[in-house]
Amino acid sequence: MSSQQRIDIQEPAGAEPLYGAGVWHFATYVDRYATDGYGEPRTILDAIELAGAVGDLSVLDLNWPFPPGGISTAQVKSALAEHGLRAMAITPEFYTGRFAKGGFTNPDPSTRREAIDLVASAAEVGRELGVDYVKLWPGQDGYDYPFQADHSDLWDKSVGAVRELAQAFPDLKFAIEYKPREPRNRMVFSSMARTLLAVQDMGVDNVGVLLDFGHSLYGGETPAEAARMAIARDKLFAIDVNDNFRGWDDDMVVGSVHLLETFEFFFALHDAGWQGVWQLDQFPFREDPVEAARAGVRTMRAFHHALELLDRDELAAAQSDQDALRAQRIAKRALFRALAESESE
Amino acid sequence: MSSQQRIDIQEPAGAEPLYGAGVWHFATYVDRYATDGYGEPRTILDAIELAGAVGDLSVLDLNWPFPPGGISTAQVKSALAEHGLRAMAITPEFYTGRFAKGGFTNPDPSTRREAIDLVASAAEVGRELGVDYVKLWPGQDGYDYPFQADHSDLWDKSVGAVRELAQAFPDLKFAIEYKPREPRNRMVFSSMARTLLAVQDMGVDNVGVLLDFGHSLYGGETPAEAARMAIARDKLFAIDVNDNFRGWDDDMVVGSVHLLETFEFFFALHDAGWQGVWQLDQFPFREDPVEAARAGVRTMRAFHHALELLDRDELAAAQSDQDALRAQRIAKRALFRALAESESE
Amino acid sequence: MSSQQRIDIQEPAGAEPLYGAGVWHFATYVDRYATDGYGEPRTILDAIELAGAVGDLSVLDLNWPFPPGGISTAQVKSALAEHGLRAMAITPEFYTGRFAKGGFTNPDPSTRREAIDLVASAAEVGRELGVDYVKLWPGQDGYDYPFQADHSDLWDKSVGAVRELAQAFPDLKFAIEYKPREPRNRMVFSSMARTLLAVQDMGVDNVGVLLDFGHSLYGGETPAEAARMAIARDKLFAIDVNDNFRGWDDDMVVGSVHLLETFEFFFALHDAGWQGVWQLDQFPFREDPVEAARAGVRTMRAFHHALELLDRDELAAAQSDQDALRAQRIAKRALFRALAESESE
Amino acid sequence: MSSQQRIDIQEPAGAEPLYGAGVWHFATYVDRYATDGYGEPRTILDAIELAGAVGDLSVLDLNWPFPPGGISTAQVKSALAEHGLRAMAITPEFYTGRFAKGGFTNPDPSTRREAIDLVASAAEVGRELGVDYVKLWPGQDGYDYPFQADHSDLWDKSVGAVRELAQAFPDLKFAIEYKPREPRNRMVFSSMARTLLAVQDMGVDNVGVLLDFGHSLYGGETPAEAARMAIARDKLFAIDVNDNFRGWDDDMVVGSVHLLETFEFFFALHDAGWQGVWQLDQFPFREDPVEAARAGVRTMRAFHHALELLDRDELAAAQSDQDALRAQRIAKRALFRALAESESE
Repeated sequence: MSSQQRIDIQEPAGAEPLYGAGVWHFATYVDRYATDGYGEPRTILDAIELAGAVGDLSVLDLNWPFPPGGISTAQVKSALAEHGLRAMAITPEFYTGRFAKGGFTNPDPSTRREAIDLVASAAEVGRELGVDYVKLWPGQDGYDYPFQADHSDLWDKSVGAVRELAQAFPDLKFAIEYKPREPRNRMVFSSMARTLLAVQDMGVDNVGVLLDFGHSLYGGETPAEAARMAIARDKLFAIDVNDNFRGWDDDMVVGSVHLLETFEFFFALHDAGWQGVWQLDQFPFREDPVEAARAGVRTMRAFHHALELLDRDELAAAQSDQDALRAQRIAKRALFRALAESESE
Repeated sequence: MSSQQRIDIQEPAGAEPLYGAGVWHFATYVDRYATDGYGEPRTILDAIELAGAVGDLSVLDLNWPFPPGGISTAQVKSALAEHGLRAMAITPEFYTGRFAKGGFTNPDPSTRREAIDLVASAAEVGRELGVDYVKLWPGQDGYDYPFQADHSDLWDKSVGAVRELAQAFPDLKFAIEYKPREPRNRMVFSSMARTLLAVQDMGVDNVGVLLDFGHSLYGGETPAEAARMAIARDKLFAIDVNDNFRGWDDDMVVGSVHLLETFEFFFALHDAGWQGVWQLDQFPFREDPVEAARAGVRTMRAFHHALELLDRDELAAAQSDQDALRAQRIAKRALFRALAESESE
Repeated sequence: MSSQQRIDIQEPAGAEPLYGAGVWHFATYVDRYATDGYGEPRTILDAIELAGAVGDLSVLDLNWPFPPGGISTAQVKSALAEHGLRAMAITPEFYTGRFAKGGFTNPDPSTRREAIDLVASAAEVGRELGVDYVKLWPGQDGYDYPFQADHSDLWDKSVGAVRELAQAFPDLKFAIEYKPREPRNRMVFSSMARTLLAVQDMGVDNVGVLLDFGHSLYGGETPAEAARMAIARDKLFAIDVNDNFRGWDDDMVVGSVHLLETFEFFFALHDAGWQGVWQLDQFPFREDPVEAARAGVRTMRAFHHALELLDRDELAAAQSDQDALRAQRIAKRALFRALAESESE
Repeated sequence: MSSQQRIDIQEPAGAEPLYGAGVWHFATYVDRYATDGYGEPRTILDAIELAGAVGDLSVLDLNWPFPPGGISTAQVKSALAEHGLRAMAITPEFYTGRFAKGGFTNPDPSTRREAIDLVASAAEVGRELGVDYVKLWPGQDGYDYPFQADHSDLWDKSVGAVRELAQAFPDLKFAIEYKPREPRNRMVFSSMARTLLAVQDMGVDNVGVLLDFGHSLYGGETPAEAARMAIARDKLFAIDVNDNFRGWDDDMVVGSVHLLETFEFFFALHDAGWQGVWQLDQFPFREDPVEAARAGVRTMRAFHHALELLDRDELAAAQSDQDALRAQRIAKRALFRALAESESE
């Protein structure tokens, strides 16, 4: 990602980052038990309105086709404008029922083609909306059982599909969101390093990675370490944050469990000079979505403030000694002060 | 559980166990991504028909209200009779959207009452169907975040609700299916031992435990060990089997990953003199449900055959020395011979 | 545990709790790779001296036989006195090489007897030292492979050994420290609930549980919930705190990863009226042990202060609604303020 | 890895693979509890003798300096010859106590240099022994706490050290064994994909990867998939096999838990045309090491036989449909027949 490509979302030195969210944060959900849903269905227009009510969000990542279908790009544009929001990304839904055995890797060539075409259509809508990137989350691309899959074939089909899309839309960027599992028991793009290898294999310049903090965490990575690896290769196109109990993609509110590791993640982004949107990917199944978003942004703001308070020289010295106690203390001093101020408001 | 209560499902010595399944094995599913479903919806009558097509199943556990609603007990009875099946259990669905914050533990007393009443209605239907037990799976009873819940309160409400139901239906048995998590991030009845303690606290005789192999496995238990603990307290009312990758309730086909531990589980049941139905709880999201059930039963039959081949004296001797290599070899000799015969058919 | 039995370690209302540590916190360690050790060996007398240097510790839990052997009880008493420390517990080491296949469950009756005798000898030393309890950590009591063990036999032997000891020393208390695994792949006393069931089976009054926060956490429990379950049965004899990454017993410094859940744990203790020592079980493999202990105590003091700041009525109201966002905010407000003050010192 | 480099360990078409083991399989162990060891210490000469007694092993991977020190290369050569064994690899022990804070990444430049020099000395001994590769397992290279490490610095130091060694010994191959954790809580070379990226960064031809089945499994990878990824890049220099419960590096006997996934792993190797030694990395803490090795080799032989029985066309067809049930059945038919024959001997 060249700095030029990023310019529209760039922050002035010291300024607060932009905050964003996946618009699904403001949807309602179903799961395999509550098939009737955790709340009444909401259209994307309802969700945009709720996002606007948060008051701290500047940009959104939008599912496409716009839920529940039958909603035009013009309607979405208008809703965004009304609520002071911008479309940062578009997320084509090629992980619904008809793609149960895969989107890019579907065994049926015509279903695979359908998945690619759906992404292409989303890309065109994204272009019209002026998004920064098309997000690719191939949730159904993977396998469930030992011996079920020809892993090389899944890899080649995945790499080939993204390459084809990237070449068809050279003016757009594509960000692959990796995830260890769910809904498939195992996914093809399962870790940062695997995804970086896949991007290499694609041989194109406009594909990068979206690092979802929670995916990284429950996949056994240290998110800060994964971020640095991607930034060093100029491939960190976007991030999402949330939290979980380290065993599943719980999509909890930022900072509800792993305060230090989330702060370490933002420190890594900042320290490496990454300048992008700080974006929520929370699923408030049973919580008020506006309040959940406010809680997430409040904590992110505190992280931003803590980064200003952080004594980087002291931290660098402690890290160069691998002095865990000292490094933690330096980080905690900044973090707790910022969090205390944030929560006492 | 007195031996008398069990008498109708008792097998003659040496005879094969009865095989059963949760009727949802033959449904289609949704999840939070494929909200349109993995296949066309099926009514419980459709599902019963598919269960009948398996050819190896004798009994079913039935969701209630009968999906998708509007289906009478008479219709279900008739469908069961037509397909040579019997209702072994009924599973009241007090884990749908309206119970998002809990059934037995819902903060709203009227919703809690609704959950209890729903189970009571199911119990009456179960009585009419002649089930062996009412299954209680309080899937929404738990919590999601640190500090969200008063754990003592959740415990008391859970214990109280089940006690009340057990006292209201003294002629019926209630089997609690524990599970570590999902859909809540943490569930109240999360392990065998916790559930046994809860049953004690209830102070009634007609409540026991349903051990789901997969729940036990991904909860960090050794299912064979958990089974023995419940049998020793005369509280193992039922079992379900399936498989997973040890991190989530994948509900895969029996024996697709953990052959030895599943066989050890059935050995424990047999060795402790437990005589109940060997029942499937698989979720074939992307597989043919009839074939998935046949695969599960085929493997269970092989386990049954392997139990006949097993040299128990040798095994007991190896175990009394904690000789892992010898014990595994004895178990494997019986298991692999039975599996080889089963799979070569 | 009667309140009388606890009286010597009781705190006045509002007073700070006593802080303690396992003396092994100040030892050096080996593992299967660094067989030459992470630092020069230290005797228990060296370790007591280091514990004294922390300045915040009042009591210790002591391994016995006193490492590395050949050290008398008088020497230990004298060292404790010199450094202003008291022996709160004694931990018999019946988990060394000769007990590789089990202490209380060793297949060889004479080795099993040796384990019991070793604990009995430790109990006598403990009585001489005036400890509050003898800690039982049967680290080698378990199994490693599917089919290796007769689980009922392991249970009976474990229960029988502890009962025998409890009956032989009716004036002493015994606290079982459960742990999911390590060094055995699976341990008999693996969870709070299993251990409570075992204590019931023992049928004696002077056996309870030691809850190690880290064991509980990586065993999939919510430590606060486990604590309440034990306190409700009057069986929480002691606690240990540390931290980990939720997959193994990393024995990291308190609060280095899971701040909120550790605070929730202390809140549960306090809220339930538990009054015992707040005790460290950290293994600073590569850190300065005195500094690591100070960091742990500093964080525990902040938790204590946060408990004073906590608005309990508000929290109770939020919890009775299961309002996760509000409950977390209330807890965080108190916690972050206390931590900010603590770390700015 | 060019085919020429591999020629001395190449098998004729259809012939059985060579079987090998890490010589530490025949050592005794300590851990942080059984500091006195699981059995009497053995020298590498003792261990070689035991390896010879297995009867099925052709090659060994040897720790260096030869344990417990003071043993010459000539003595080792002679012991190998006497027992009909060949040194396939040498494993420099730069993960002992003095490298507690890292070998290649030690904060102290002189200790880092010492680690590199130790590997260089091992490489010279390896050359003298005619090994196929020098194994690099940087067990202490990583970190333990959030904020402890500068991840970019650890990466650069790791990559730089291996590059330097590879350039210093252009006639030798170096195989990096990745592992998610232990002894450090997090390791630098933690997954297949990360290690492949590191090998790229090194920019040398004689560095590849050793895939340890158990490390891959408990790291959340599908070992078969990881193997194909490395083979496709011509970087799979060696493999180790063992088994575990998916949460830790238990180093159990091959096939004691995950039969299907281990067979899938060997199928992937075979299918991709990989021709290398099938090598054990088991730690029989409490088992007879010769019997444990025989059990491991017996199972590997059965896998080899099962590969001959496997209907590859049928399997390919099932996989191209992602038909999990059919693919599993085809694999199981071959596997169970081979295992049944193997275990009935």
